[in-house]
Amino acid sequence: MPYVRSPIDSGNLANANAANTSKAPRLYLEDIVTGQQFTSASRQITADEIKRYAQQFDPQPFHLDEEAAKSTFFGGLAASGWHTAGITMRLLVESGMPLAGGIIGAGGEITWPQATRPDDVLHVVTEVISVTPSRSRPDRGFIQARSQTFNQKGEVVQLLLAKLMVWSRSVKT
Amino acid sequence: MPYVRSPIDSGNLANANAANTSKAPRLYLEDIVTGQQFTSASRQITADEIKRYAQQFDPQPFHLDEEAAKSTFFGGLAASGWHTAGITMRLLVESGMPLAGGIIGAGGEITWPQATRPDDVLHVVTEVISVTPSRSRPDRGFIQARSQTFNQKGEVVQLLLAKLMVWSRSVKT
Repeated sequence: MPYVRSPIDSGNLANANAANTSKAPRLYLEDIVTGQQFTSASRQITADEIKRYAQQFDPQPFHLDEEAAKSTFFGGLAASGWHTAGITMRLLVESGMPLAGGIIGAGGEITWPQATRPDDVLHVVTEVISVTPSRSRPDRGFIQARSQTFNQKGEVVQLLLAKLMVWSRSVKT
Repeated sequence: MPYVRSPIDSGNLANANAANTSKAPRLYLEDIVTGQQFTSASRQITADEIKRYAQQFDPQPFHLDEEAAKSTFFGGLAASGWHTAGITMRLLVESGMPLAGGIIGAGGEITWPQATRPDDVLHVVTEVISVTPSRSRPDRGFIQARSQTFNQKGEVVQLLLAKLMVWSRSVKT
């Protein structure tokens, strides 16, 4: 899909850059256009965080222990894909997608082309793919957003195509 | 897709029931057939767990605080969808899908038809949708598995259609 730059879009790119601060403007349905992009802050992931997540949610050898991971598919310690998803969500919430009323996802498609590794530095680039006002409920709409989570080498560790609910400006949440 | 019961399948349903113990047999590509089902153990989720996950990965009011959540879309404290995904993964790893070499996902489609709420008791029912040996690598194949995460009322809180890598019996991982 071509990237369509528009006056609104340029404005919101500025908003996106300001999103690292708590004063970032919050966007309503009317502020969002196809092609709009947002870039999150970066965050480094440690081996300890990878193991701690795995102990809670994905206790498999390749996520829990460097030595045990060596003889597995991953060839070394790798973060659970669901951990990468959680880190991505935190980056989106704190700096990557300033939606009014918060980021409320109905679901989406997710792939992990590469594993997240200890000491990786991740950031998320999100592009709006489509914007659809609700037919039945004028207070809201849906957007499709493609969020790519990159490591410090520029490799995509997660591709998420998400369907998100967005409030209309008529409702001040 | 119709549920196809076969001798192998019946055997593995027994395996699935035994999966709550550490002695559960591990399944290779050759053991897996379309229509095969697995049912995980159950697990109750507390409000504290919901908030703790949110603090780490999804710090939004409707996941962090009962009072603040009341005036939001969710109308009360709700787990992050990514928390539901993590809980589902733990249930799959520990009792829901006894794959040899572990559960290694390439990605999938995920939806959250209902939010997970404090004190919900979740379990996961997984059905094999397709089985595809790799053309280029005889040591592995891929399966599509549909994992439905149910709450205690029988409502689906997460539907995950996942693509998983499965080892062939020729490779003892």
